[in-house]
Amino acid sequence: MNLQSELKKRADAFNKYWLKYLQEGKPATLYDAARHLPLGGGKRLRPFLVMLSCESVFGDAEKTLPFGAALEIMHSFTLAHDDIMDKSNLRRNVPAVHIKFGEPAAILAGDFLFARSFEAMHDLSVDCQIFKQLNYDLIQCILDICEGQQLDMDFEQRKIITEEEYIDMITRKTAALFRLAAKGGAIIGGGNKNEVSALTDYARYLGLSFQIWDDYLDISSNEETLGKDIGNDIRNGKKTLIAVYSLQNATGENKQILDEVFGNSSASDDGVKRVFTLFKEMGSIDYAKKTAIEYNKKAKDTLKILKDSEAKEILKELADYSIKREK
Amino acid sequence: MNLQSELKKRADAFNKYWLKYLQEGKPATLYDAARHLPLGGGKRLRPFLVMLSCESVFGDAEKTLPFGAALEIMHSFTLAHDDIMDKSNLRRNVPAVHIKFGEPAAILAGDFLFARSFEAMHDLSVDCQIFKQLNYDLIQCILDICEGQQLDMDFEQRKIITEEEYIDMITRKTAALFRLAAKGGAIIGGGNKNEVSALTDYARYLGLSFQIWDDYLDISSNEETLGKDIGNDIRNGKKTLIAVYSLQNATGENKQILDEVFGNSSASDDGVKRVFTLFKEMGSIDYAKKTAIEYNKKAKDTLKILKDSEAKEILKELADYSIKREK
Repeated sequence: MNLQSELKKRADAFNKYWLKYLQEGKPATLYDAARHLPLGGGKRLRPFLVMLSCESVFGDAEKTLPFGAALEIMHSFTLAHDDIMDKSNLRRNVPAVHIKFGEPAAILAGDFLFARSFEAMHDLSVDCQIFKQLNYDLIQCILDICEGQQLDMDFEQRKIITEEEYIDMITRKTAALFRLAAKGGAIIGGGNKNEVSALTDYARYLGLSFQIWDDYLDISSNEETLGKDIGNDIRNGKKTLIAVYSLQNATGENKQILDEVFGNSSASDDGVKRVFTLFKEMGSIDYAKKTAIEYNKKAKDTLKILKDSEAKEILKELADYSIKREK
Repeated sequence: MNLQSELKKRADAFNKYWLKYLQEGKPATLYDAARHLPLGGGKRLRPFLVMLSCESVFGDAEKTLPFGAALEIMHSFTLAHDDIMDKSNLRRNVPAVHIKFGEPAAILAGDFLFARSFEAMHDLSVDCQIFKQLNYDLIQCILDICEGQQLDMDFEQRKIITEEEYIDMITRKTAALFRLAAKGGAIIGGGNKNEVSALTDYARYLGLSFQIWDDYLDISSNEETLGKDIGNDIRNGKKTLIAVYSLQNATGENKQILDEVFGNSSASDDGVKRVFTLFKEMGSIDYAKKTAIEYNKKAKDTLKILKDSEAKEILKELADYSIKREK
């Protein structure tokens, strides 16, 4: 079994399906801005997770497509708005929505996608009570994401964040949508209570290891070039697990360097470089890597109660992929 | 029957009810920003319309409270985001959300309210299929509002807008939420198809006369002072019905003044004053007033098929209020 080909097979089916929610329309600025990110690529991990979760309880993955679309559209909405809030100019190597279409259109396009996401749910062929439950779960998920994003912004203004606070933040900001993907897929597939619960837990751990590995990759892939993004993250005081660990454990000279440079918008390139070296020497990068691997193990453990299936194997591979990928 | 006391009675009940969706919470910035506009006042016209529509088909208005809350929260969300897009600093005489809490928090607070609005719907005690229909209608309403807002922004960049285009824009941006208020109230109240349809039409006409009267008030209440807002609207090229009518019918010197001043961000105070005088002399202000009154008549006409009730009388008064109010 090859994860990439399994992913591609389902992403192709999904990409064909969700186009119906992303047609051109008028006013053109609104529709074009709303289509920009969804049609600009992406791995479709969330719909993939929905499908696999459904398959792992021996349900029909095709039935999940509207739900996968709702989540992927909701994900696009959060990206469009997050990029404005975080002043990010690039997304998946293309200009962010607000860079290409201006901020008003980007705000509005996000709102439009938000509504479209709920609209996609109406194409689900499920019992009305299940529709209602999934609708409620999606709402709670977005409230979580909003809280996570605000925490993320708040953290930039604070000196010390505990690891627990950091995990709580990414649980909301990143893992919440993963959780709902797995939960919804299992419910639509007719999974029993234990299966739904196990798959939901799996996805939470997967989301956490994914996000922490992302932080690790951002740093390690920039090791030689020390790219602009890392410099910005250090100057903005962005609280990744690596930063959280360093800030909590630094003493003496290390503490002094962090105090001077981390979160200092006018820090020099040399200062940024010293923080980066410090991250390595304090073992913070290794610590993040280790933590991601622990969540990966927990993710796979929760799958044990599921009956054996190809989907179960793919879910295990997906967990491993979350801590093996290099981009 | 006194409209203001009928309005106050229902607004008081509503204000007490919807507090449950607007509690304090953490992260505080997000919750405070989300509570800012809803708790900052407002006439509660939309919940009022929901209740009256329900009462006019002899339903129990208390049952509509979650739906009224959903619409009023959705209305708050649109105000929070619109003020960012339109660069408006004040709303109901208090600072706009983005002025008080910063733009990132205002974007996020809007998103949060959006989700809360859908959450409120879950407190409705209605059949699941009716829940699903109202949920779908709310989604379509927001898509309409987004399109209306984009059209409004697009119109500022265009020289000539037809009256039809203008009416289409405010039908989406303003009247859509009025329509849904009346439709939802009638459905929750158990109205028959004809009643639901008549009340929906009533609310569309009401929304149109309301918006046009707003444009008229903005101009006429500024007649003596020629306040900053009117100056801004003229300099931004804001397409009210008054402007649309003037731009379509101006010839000779009038056309020349409009070409020079209207939509010219650096127009002089004297230029603005000349445009204002031109609006009056061309009869554009009277035309807008007349149009609002026509919609008012249509609104009242659609009520004829309803059985007589106190609610029906209040709805008639509300229509008249839309073209009598002075602020």
